[in-house]
Amino acid sequence: MGASALTGPVEIIGTGLIGTSIALACRRAGLEVLLTDAAPDHVRTASGLGAGRPREAVDVPQLVVVAVPPDALGAAIRQTLDAAGPETFVTDVGSVKGAPLDAVASHPAVSRYVGSHPMAGTEHSGPLSASAAMFDGRPWAITPGPDATPAAVHVVEALVRVCGAVPVHLPPGEHDRAVARTSHVPHLMAALVAGTLAGATPAHLALSGTGVRDVTRVAGGDPRLYSQIIGGNAEAVAALLGEVRERLDLVLEAVAGKDRVGLESLLAYGQAGTRAIPGKHGAAPQPMEAVRVAVPDHPGELARLFADAGASGVNIEDVRIDHDPGRPVGLVELDVIETRAEELRVALESNGWTTHR
Amino acid sequence: MGASALTGPVEIIGTGLIGTSIALACRRAGLEVLLTDAAPDHVRTASGLGAGRPREAVDVPQLVVVAVPPDALGAAIRQTLDAAGPETFVTDVGSVKGAPLDAVASHPAVSRYVGSHPMAGTEHSGPLSASAAMFDGRPWAITPGPDATPAAVHVVEALVRVCGAVPVHLPPGEHDRAVARTSHVPHLMAALVAGTLAGATPAHLALSGTGVRDVTRVAGGDPRLYSQIIGGNAEAVAALLGEVRERLDLVLEAVAGKDRVGLESLLAYGQAGTRAIPGKHGAAPQPMEAVRVAVPDHPGELARLFADAGASGVNIEDVRIDHDPGRPVGLVELDVIETRAEELRVALESNGWTTHR
Repeated sequence: MGASALTGPVEIIGTGLIGTSIALACRRAGLEVLLTDAAPDHVRTASGLGAGRPREAVDVPQLVVVAVPPDALGAAIRQTLDAAGPETFVTDVGSVKGAPLDAVASHPAVSRYVGSHPMAGTEHSGPLSASAAMFDGRPWAITPGPDATPAAVHVVEALVRVCGAVPVHLPPGEHDRAVARTSHVPHLMAALVAGTLAGATPAHLALSGTGVRDVTRVAGGDPRLYSQIIGGNAEAVAALLGEVRERLDLVLEAVAGKDRVGLESLLAYGQAGTRAIPGKHGAAPQPMEAVRVAVPDHPGELARLFADAGASGVNIEDVRIDHDPGRPVGLVELDVIETRAEELRVALESNGWTTHR
Repeated sequence: MGASALTGPVEIIGTGLIGTSIALACRRAGLEVLLTDAAPDHVRTASGLGAGRPREAVDVPQLVVVAVPPDALGAAIRQTLDAAGPETFVTDVGSVKGAPLDAVASHPAVSRYVGSHPMAGTEHSGPLSASAAMFDGRPWAITPGPDATPAAVHVVEALVRVCGAVPVHLPPGEHDRAVARTSHVPHLMAALVAGTLAGATPAHLALSGTGVRDVTRVAGGDPRLYSQIIGGNAEAVAALLGEVRERLDLVLEAVAGKDRVGLESLLAYGQAGTRAIPGKHGAAPQPMEAVRVAVPDHPGELARLFADAGASGVNIEDVRIDHDPGRPVGLVELDVIETRAEELRVALESNGWTTHR
């Protein structure tokens, strides 16, 4: 069952960054969108952006998306279930899934509630930073409780697909442990690094490169919002942060003790971790093929090859060069997706290159 | 004195990522570039990319750039000074400045050596990832020792400008303390976070977003290279990392103790740190002006305004919206660089918008 289970209307409660982006994605798909927010100005802004129209009392949404800040979430889901008719399903998009479910576990309508969580967003807040494309290709967790009906799960999964995201099903507690690792602890570590910059001299800060910007970027997010999110996942976060502190002690010992081997192995463990992060869409790697090209050993010939390869439109995934000590010719291997290898060969040959089949 | 103090030839010793990028930038500026590397294949690759030609015994470079890995650096600078004639200046591009200077402090030709360090690079290595644009707009530290002549400093500063970078002058010891803060400790913290992912289950890793990718990206760099760099700055790094460990203890207490206020203030300190990082080029902020536009309160009107503003080509730095409770019209303020405010007003008025002067 794909996106067609969602026919609308969709009501968005909380027209902040995430709520408004979901609204824009639904409008992009031609669905009717109703907007609700405690602040009428936010509804006007979101509506002005094309995200939908203000909800009226007579409206009967098919799906309500509760997108309010974490501390207000449990109560907002409860009130939504109170007001929802038998045809209305409810989801929320909070960053922690255990607590909201606990807040409504005994509600008579809980079977129509399925929590979810899009892994998307920026360090900005508010509807003006929203985008219909916010969730394209992103993972979006779906975390039904034990009482949720399949129909409710299907409608929420359809929302995820309408927003262009990739559904990832897991139980609420497991979700919370996962995001402690993939989101909350990284955020705290980024904030710790950023904190060392807060009092630094301008002369030192002048030597900032892309590395420190990358490491600290996420720490630019709203402290009040993130203290709610992380505070709401305290157990999982504290457990993992304790492990990190022990490893930090090992790093400190290795640096202070000039233990190069120890330091290198800790860095290697980190490098392995960066390779564990899945590629786009969590897609399986595609089979590659090596296109072999003879490259004369003159200045600039390699550059010319890469320019011609770039012009072919076939993406080069990796390159190996074998210089032949006996002759002034090198063999270059260009790794491309198997199905496009011949296309690249033909393009290069038309530019005078010699390829090997 | 600008880039004209550098007339060439420039010799690059070590045609890795940084060396080859410097070579390409010099070739971009029309300078003659000579290439040296312990591995002849690397010279052939760099030359193939258009980075220069192999150095010959008869060549007399104006400036030699030593771009070899950290552990080989001191010896390589010494050998270069041994071989350099009276017209030849020497710099290196190592990430730590104290140790290389110590290695040559008593050399008879030390007055012609000025260490430097471009704050640029990627987590990739090798000449194939090099780019002439690598240093555009980046800071590049210049760290003369007490014996360096002004002529030597000028030639190195000219190299920095030829590469499109922004020179930042500071003494070697201060540089090392600065990069402990802006580069080495962030790298170690990124590696610690990445290490928590190395053994995680695929189901958990599936919930990875841009935040954790940003935090861990720099940890993808070569462990052997970074253990040399960070190990070479052990004192400054250990001191700062010790401070970070104490703050991590505070974060852990706040999370485990459900101390929301404490957690929020630690996060706020981190947010302030992200704002301390200078903007592009370390440029001073330009004066802004608010362009005021009346926006009718209909669905989609705001989106139309932003589309028209985008089409004007004038960059919007910030936006404020004031909805008028008495009338169905909102007032939008678009902050733009003062010198382009009138251009934006005219563009919007030509699209039927009402602006206020």
